[in-house]
Amino acid sequence: MKTGLDYFFYADSVAIVGATDNPGKAGNQIVKNLVEGGYQGQIYPVHPTNKEICGLTCYPDLLSIAGSIELIVIVISDFGVPEVMRQAAKRGDIKGAVIIAAGFSETKIPERIALEEEVLALAREAGIRVFGPNCVGVINTKNNVDTTFVSHINKEFREFSFISQSGATGASIIKFASDQPVPFGFNKWAHVGNMSDVDILEILAYYEKDPDTKAIGMYMEGVENATEFLQVAKRVTKNKPLLILKVGRSEMGSQAAASHTGSLAGADRIYEGAFKQVGINRVSTIDELLDAAKAFSMQPIPKGKKICVLTEAGGPGIICMDELGLSENVEMAELSEGCVKKLQEILPPMAIVNRPQGYIDMSAAALEKAHAEALELVLAEEGVDGVILISVPPTFLDSTKLAKEVVKVTAKHNKPVLTCLMAGDWVKDARVLLETKAMPTFDLPQRAARAMINLVKRNDFLQKLEKEGK
Amino acid sequence: MKTGLDYFFYADSVAIVGATDNPGKAGNQIVKNLVEGGYQGQIYPVHPTNKEICGLTCYPDLLSIAGSIELIVIVISDFGVPEVMRQAAKRGDIKGAVIIAAGFSETKIPERIALEEEVLALAREAGIRVFGPNCVGVINTKNNVDTTFVSHINKEFREFSFISQSGATGASIIKFASDQPVPFGFNKWAHVGNMSDVDILEILAYYEKDPDTKAIGMYMEGVENATEFLQVAKRVTKNKPLLILKVGRSEMGSQAAASHTGSLAGADRIYEGAFKQVGINRVSTIDELLDAAKAFSMQPIPKGKKICVLTEAGGPGIICMDELGLSENVEMAELSEGCVKKLQEILPPMAIVNRPQGYIDMSAAALEKAHAEALELVLAEEGVDGVILISVPPTFLDSTKLAKEVVKVTAKHNKPVLTCLMAGDWVKDARVLLETKAMPTFDLPQRAARAMINLVKRNDFLQKLEKEGK
Repeated sequence: MKTGLDYFFYADSVAIVGATDNPGKAGNQIVKNLVEGGYQGQIYPVHPTNKEICGLTCYPDLLSIAGSIELIVIVISDFGVPEVMRQAAKRGDIKGAVIIAAGFSETKIPERIALEEEVLALAREAGIRVFGPNCVGVINTKNNVDTTFVSHINKEFREFSFISQSGATGASIIKFASDQPVPFGFNKWAHVGNMSDVDILEILAYYEKDPDTKAIGMYMEGVENATEFLQVAKRVTKNKPLLILKVGRSEMGSQAAASHTGSLAGADRIYEGAFKQVGINRVSTIDELLDAAKAFSMQPIPKGKKICVLTEAGGPGIICMDELGLSENVEMAELSEGCVKKLQEILPPMAIVNRPQGYIDMSAAALEKAHAEALELVLAEEGVDGVILISVPPTFLDSTKLAKEVVKVTAKHNKPVLTCLMAGDWVKDARVLLETKAMPTFDLPQRAARAMINLVKRNDFLQKLEKEGK
Repeated sequence: MKTGLDYFFYADSVAIVGATDNPGKAGNQIVKNLVEGGYQGQIYPVHPTNKEICGLTCYPDLLSIAGSIELIVIVISDFGVPEVMRQAAKRGDIKGAVIIAAGFSETKIPERIALEEEVLALAREAGIRVFGPNCVGVINTKNNVDTTFVSHINKEFREFSFISQSGATGASIIKFASDQPVPFGFNKWAHVGNMSDVDILEILAYYEKDPDTKAIGMYMEGVENATEFLQVAKRVTKNKPLLILKVGRSEMGSQAAASHTGSLAGADRIYEGAFKQVGINRVSTIDELLDAAKAFSMQPIPKGKKICVLTEAGGPGIICMDELGLSENVEMAELSEGCVKKLQEILPPMAIVNRPQGYIDMSAAALEKAHAEALELVLAEEGVDGVILISVPPTFLDSTKLAKEVVKVTAKHNKPVLTCLMAGDWVKDARVLLETKAMPTFDLPQRAARAMINLVKRNDFLQKLEKEGK
């Protein structure tokens, strides 16, 4: 049976109040996203005079629609919203409303704060749950529910879901994810706006129980009740990785956040410590968030912190080591004498094996076979919990052949392997091949390193939980 | 008159010893790069039996070539090199040699160290300067000299030149630069290998005097004589920005560097301090290096440290502020009362103006005209030294129209404007338009922020020099 947020993420029917046949307007894009995105439920565009929008019959108001409606999206402007809510209440069948319109409590103008309260009171009385106002709403790539006006997003199904406290950041993360070698689609996505009713805590709890969500990401500016948030997060992280891009790392960032969502960012060090304690993976940048999301949704969590760096290229390998070395969480892999000896046998004479510990520079002379054999050898080692494989394929190395070998070897072991192929478009096909087989690729060594650090941090936390018997 | 490194970067004729008609081999790619890259000088492939390579007559050895030769590229293997050098010496006209072959002093094997010494002695006696061994050589995009076997690189002419202590890092930076909205080609590029003769100091000094080079970048693992390096760097930075990606930020990175080039990375804090003192812009990642390179070669240096952030999107603006706030170098812009008032008039009512200081969230309702007018207003302010403009163009904002307006306004002021358009392929055309007009674009707000911090650091150093009367 449907409850709470199901009416948003699994809506059977959607009415868009403020739909329009004027392309380029949000009210047009929302209908277009639903129709072209392949949403299978009923779609009802509502506009006072338009007769047809995106090939669908258009209705003058909610009360003129004969079929049942589960969810409404309100794109008309501020002071028109109460009347729409009254009509919705009169119908009796509507369970959820996404209010995209801005101009409510976020303006801090008393009249508009009252307007938000009025709308919410009407919704509450009618048993309608509310997203927003001043929000973009939800996306579910499983059934193509999409209340946003974000255009051209990729809806490939992945097991990573996202919550954003900024519509633009949320939208740009989706777009950024679409630009990956294999476009990375989120599973569920939500932007909460003013949180007059549904807030980030409720969405977090919803994702926690969602069987399609394996890992959760969030862009966060601040919350009113940090204690409550940390309690929920603590529960969530027991079951799923929680990646949070929390701004406020600097005073200037905190101030900008405060003027945006009115949220008090609070002393960053307190957040940092609390996040760590409850097992949140805090990330610093949009790319770190996306990279970690790729790693978590495609690869297993390492069983320990011992990482092996296997590189075909000196400089990039060193850059990777430099980044790993800045983390307190990672240690370098321990290779057995036998493994080191075999590596020396199979690799070109220029190779630098296990110097420093856990670091193997295979040299530019290493071909596809040497890459695969070396990867096989280190993955089989007890002292290796995960591998970062770096290659800058020269002209004489077939990168798609390499990719196939790497997929084959990795599949034999339940250890994370992150690959960094650095040669622009030249290795695009190989990267597509790897990502299609659930092996995340990165274009820069420090990005692969950061993703691995996030995986190791997650294991650290899980081991801590286990020790504490929780 | 030609001297020293001119014989490499401006070679009139190139012989490739070890050329081959076997595609995929380095000795084939080098000839291909020269021919297809549009190099206008004479090209002489040398191979014992091949008659023709890439449509060019092939010669059995150097002595069989009737025309004059200025530069040779040696792609044959280690122990064959002395004989090639003897032939080169016998000819008398050869001025430079790029030895790509590896297997010399870098192996630390006495026999091979001696081999390198032998080759060098032969070259010295014949007055031939040597790049390498174990290097990729040089690229000059002005005349298409290219001794590398890096394929598919972009040779668009820019005023940024690069030195690399790692072939793979150097190659991947070029490829990475080629993937920018407008492929970013370096001016000159050099990979030094074992530095038996030409070293990074000499190239640095060469770039210092090169009129086509406006800014210099370097990937550095370590140098033998740090004091001498810092002296040269100190001289160079008086005239040109010097961006260095120096590994060794962590102990693990230092160790990996030591096993690669044998260079002692030294305590990182000492490097950090010394770099700052001599005015080197130290960067942490490949993307920071490229982003700063774009900023330095396209935009003016700010006259001060007061930066204005003008954003259409709350979250991304805050992420940018967060990053700027982590820098000691940047301060936020000071806007006059009149400017603030006018901004409030022209921007949508939801806009947040100058809260915090120097930060303007124009709101998602700001259209092309509002972006342009706001940019014009802040650029005209005395308290603004540079602007970061961020936009996540929604469907109803025409991003190419926006780009045209931004170019027009920016051209009126001699202040750096860095733009961050975040919407993936959706804004590709706009980014191409901006970069074609020498306005660098970035896909993530923290990258634009880091690039601006690098520009401000440069001005800080120049002002310090001026104060000291140097």
